Amino acid sequence: MDLNADLGEGFGRWELGDDEALLDVVTSANVACGFHAGDAATMRRTCALAASQGVAVGAQVGYRDLAGFGRRFIEYELPQLRDEIIYQVGALQALAAAEGTRVRYLKPHGALYHAVAHVDAIVDAARATGLPVLCAPGSPLATAAGDAVVPVYAEGFADRAYRADGTLLPRGKPGAVITDQEEVVARALLMAVDQRVIALDGTVLPHAVDSICLHGDTPGAVTLARAVREALAQADVPLRPFLP
Amino acid sequence: MDLNADLGEGFGRWELGDDEALLDVVTSANVACGFHAGDAATMRRTCALAASQGVAVGAQVGYRDLAGFGRRFIEYELPQLRDEIIYQVGALQALAAAEGTRVRYLKPHGALYHAVAHVDAIVDAARATGLPVLCAPGSPLATAAGDAVVPVYAEGFADRAYRADGTLLPRGKPGAVITDQEEVVARALLMAVDQRVIALDGTVLPHAVDSICLHGDTPGAVTLARAVREALAQADVPLRPFLP
Amino acid sequence: MDLNADLGEGFGRWELGDDEALLDVVTSANVACGFHAGDAATMRRTCALAASQGVAVGAQVGYRDLAGFGRRFIEYELPQLRDEIIYQVGALQALAAAEGTRVRYLKPHGALYHAVAHVDAIVDAARATGLPVLCAPGSPLATAAGDAVVPVYAEGFADRAYRADGTLLPRGKPGAVITDQEEVVARALLMAVDQRVIALDGTVLPHAVDSICLHGDTPGAVTLARAVREALAQADVPLRPFLP
Amino acid sequence: MDLNADLGEGFGRWELGDDEALLDVVTSANVACGFHAGDAATMRRTCALAASQGVAVGAQVGYRDLAGFGRRFIEYELPQLRDEIIYQVGALQALAAAEGTRVRYLKPHGALYHAVAHVDAIVDAARATGLPVLCAPGSPLATAAGDAVVPVYAEGFADRAYRADGTLLPRGKPGAVITDQEEVVARALLMAVDQRVIALDGTVLPHAVDSICLHGDTPGAVTLARAVREALAQADVPLRPFLP
Repeated sequence: MDLNADLGEGFGRWELGDDEALLDVVTSANVACGFHAGDAATMRRTCALAASQGVAVGAQVGYRDLAGFGRRFIEYELPQLRDEIIYQVGALQALAAAEGTRVRYLKPHGALYHAVAHVDAIVDAARATGLPVLCAPGSPLATAAGDAVVPVYAEGFADRAYRADGTLLPRGKPGAVITDQEEVVARALLMAVDQRVIALDGTVLPHAVDSICLHGDTPGAVTLARAVREALAQADVPLRPFLP
Repeated sequence: MDLNADLGEGFGRWELGDDEALLDVVTSANVACGFHAGDAATMRRTCALAASQGVAVGAQVGYRDLAGFGRRFIEYELPQLRDEIIYQVGALQALAAAEGTRVRYLKPHGALYHAVAHVDAIVDAARATGLPVLCAPGSPLATAAGDAVVPVYAEGFADRAYRADGTLLPRGKPGAVITDQEEVVARALLMAVDQRVIALDGTVLPHAVDSICLHGDTPGAVTLARAVREALAQADVPLRPFLP
Repeated sequence: MDLNADLGEGFGRWELGDDEALLDVVTSANVACGFHAGDAATMRRTCALAASQGVAVGAQVGYRDLAGFGRRFIEYELPQLRDEIIYQVGALQALAAAEGTRVRYLKPHGALYHAVAHVDAIVDAARATGLPVLCAPGSPLATAAGDAVVPVYAEGFADRAYRADGTLLPRGKPGAVITDQEEVVARALLMAVDQRVIALDGTVLPHAVDSICLHGDTPGAVTLARAVREALAQADVPLRPFLP
Repeated sequence: MDLNADLGEGFGRWELGDDEALLDVVTSANVACGFHAGDAATMRRTCALAASQGVAVGAQVGYRDLAGFGRRFIEYELPQLRDEIIYQVGALQALAAAEGTRVRYLKPHGALYHAVAHVDAIVDAARATGLPVLCAPGSPLATAAGDAVVPVYAEGFADRAYRADGTLLPRGKPGAVITDQEEVVARALLMAVDQRVIALDGTVLPHAVDSICLHGDTPGAVTLARAVREALAQADVPLRPFLP
């Protein structure tokens, strides 16, 4: 099983999350590429740390929206969005290469992760850059990537509530984010070992994922992430980047 | 002889210069990379046009300063500037690749072109990306690149006045920019054929250049550029990218 | 009748439209406030020109989106959008004051002009800054402003096609923009003198407006604007800012 | 004596310092205005908190440089910089007014605080907006403001080392920032009660200041700020905004 997290999400003077601590936990790092977060120096430093830890580097691409951290839908024209994604990937590729590593996958961030209208721009950018996509299984993005023969990898969220249809309860709703360590660990194990997740209404859903997404920018997040990693290790789940 | 010009210098709704006309004239295109001008869609379109015309693509890198068009010195820390240059180059590389071409060289723009304090950041970025640098012969940048064994190519300006020490008369000074077509053409021929330039005080200076820089964003610029190209062609000067 | 136009829509090195020519034609200037277009120096210069011509200054407020020129819907949270509009208005107020004039009204730009979801943010910002709103009559924004007892002034478009329900045919559709001078002038006169507009299907609609919006950033726009002004003057329609 | 601190220095998703805690300590708040830090919603919230605590609001103006936090010198043309400062002040004025308070003074931030070349732009902006300037006593900015009959108020730094000529030891140098609580408190008392500061070489300098600047974005800063306030209160130094 792979563990991924968003990293390098500061900008200039501003920091976010404890990147060094998380890089000890994850096996894949989604590095912010400068449009919604991240700057060149942070991107490079994150790549260097990832390389030194054997962590795979992915391009965390998003809308051009520093003020909104990429969390607001923007009504892009598709070719423009596609080209901005390619731009971000290329920027990270050059900085990763400068640190002796390379970009292995692409993961959309924030509102772009969920924007049904924009899946073709993401898929086209993935094809143009030759990268696979990391996203939610069964999502419109996963489907579009599959249709375009772009490799897709699936990720699950051990700390998020699922609805019976397999989609996430939106972040704003009560109970959407699970913070109880025991519960998060149990859910991670269920995903990793049994490839299942239990929905809000109790339904047990099949949920085969290649990676579990951990969060780093909330209080206690790193402790939680460590607990998940440790539990998976104790359950003899091999931890490694989802890409060979 | 190579003819180069700054291209793709619009941003979003704003356009600058007549890119299509200039791409008929030049053999190398310095494509703005989004920090002082240029956006992803414009970069890609410019690469596509350049590729279809056999024009070489270079990365026109600059300070992060859309409001100042990269023409204002910014007191960067060198590692940050170096990484921002690598970022810009990588972004253009990915968009060029999407159009079946590639980035062949790096040329600093505006205040960065002249910033003595920043030559090491440029040279380090050139080395990290494996690109040669296009700049003024004898400049601090040319010297630093030479010291670092980074390939350097020299460019001259047929429409700019030179001082007796071989440097350009700064743009603000009277007479700094030459607009008379006959004179510009004569100066281009002198550079291309005799590898010389005549300074303001009449001194004849040796001036071996690999490329002549043409401008596109002033009234009459395209006509002037065409006249230079035609004159060189008639003088049997072969026109081709400075890189093999 | 008032004639208004968008002005000061350049940014740094980039210019858009012929502001000086338009300021000879209009009686109200919608000055871009820096978020989707415009910069401080341009705003000030536009205020100075407007003041010297007796042209009323309005705040052309928009989304934070230089790359998209404010033409893309952004899913803002309302309080944030409201505060960004107040921010823009205040910035223009200070620059207008420095030139001895003042901001008289607020007009949303681009996607914000049409965003039904955002009318409350605009109305709240108008109330906070004590400014009336200039917008399309009968629009959701006009209604919301009316409900909130914020003064509203109505504008018509002599060069745009109307649907039978009184709304504009969207800009992308064929026939949406009318460029024939005779027709534009006739429509302006019909609006100004008879308070009517003829819809696409021939329906004659009542259309009482306080201002006619002219455009300046397309080829021939200034000539068209001048023709409208002249025709109104010849028809003895008094031309003056819509605010007393 | 007044106590001032930089506040509202987050941007979008990113926070910096503990604004609420500091607003309990200071009597004047330098609110970042969006060019180097700060966004409209943060500015408004900071004004609201300041108003509710009786804290005076000042405009913390800076270069247009979010990526550099305003700490890098930028070679502006003076009229442009002047207009950008007016722009920032106006934006804050409108948001302050929306919260029932108003902007009382102007304080340059970061590299602009120290930029000798830019004092005239600051002074012109202060005059245009009718605001006094808060800066270091004896600085080129203080002198230029005095010459222009713009009111100037002086601030001292209890946690910074002074050179024998009365200037600050630059932030990068060892010993530039004093973190020992006892020493900082002693220096604050010496400034507030005796109007003196002891330079690095032991020289006792006269140092009459209207305000002491406290910092909030470093670990332990709030504790230090509280200690200074408490010590001044115990020494019967009245604490209030420097402006009546």
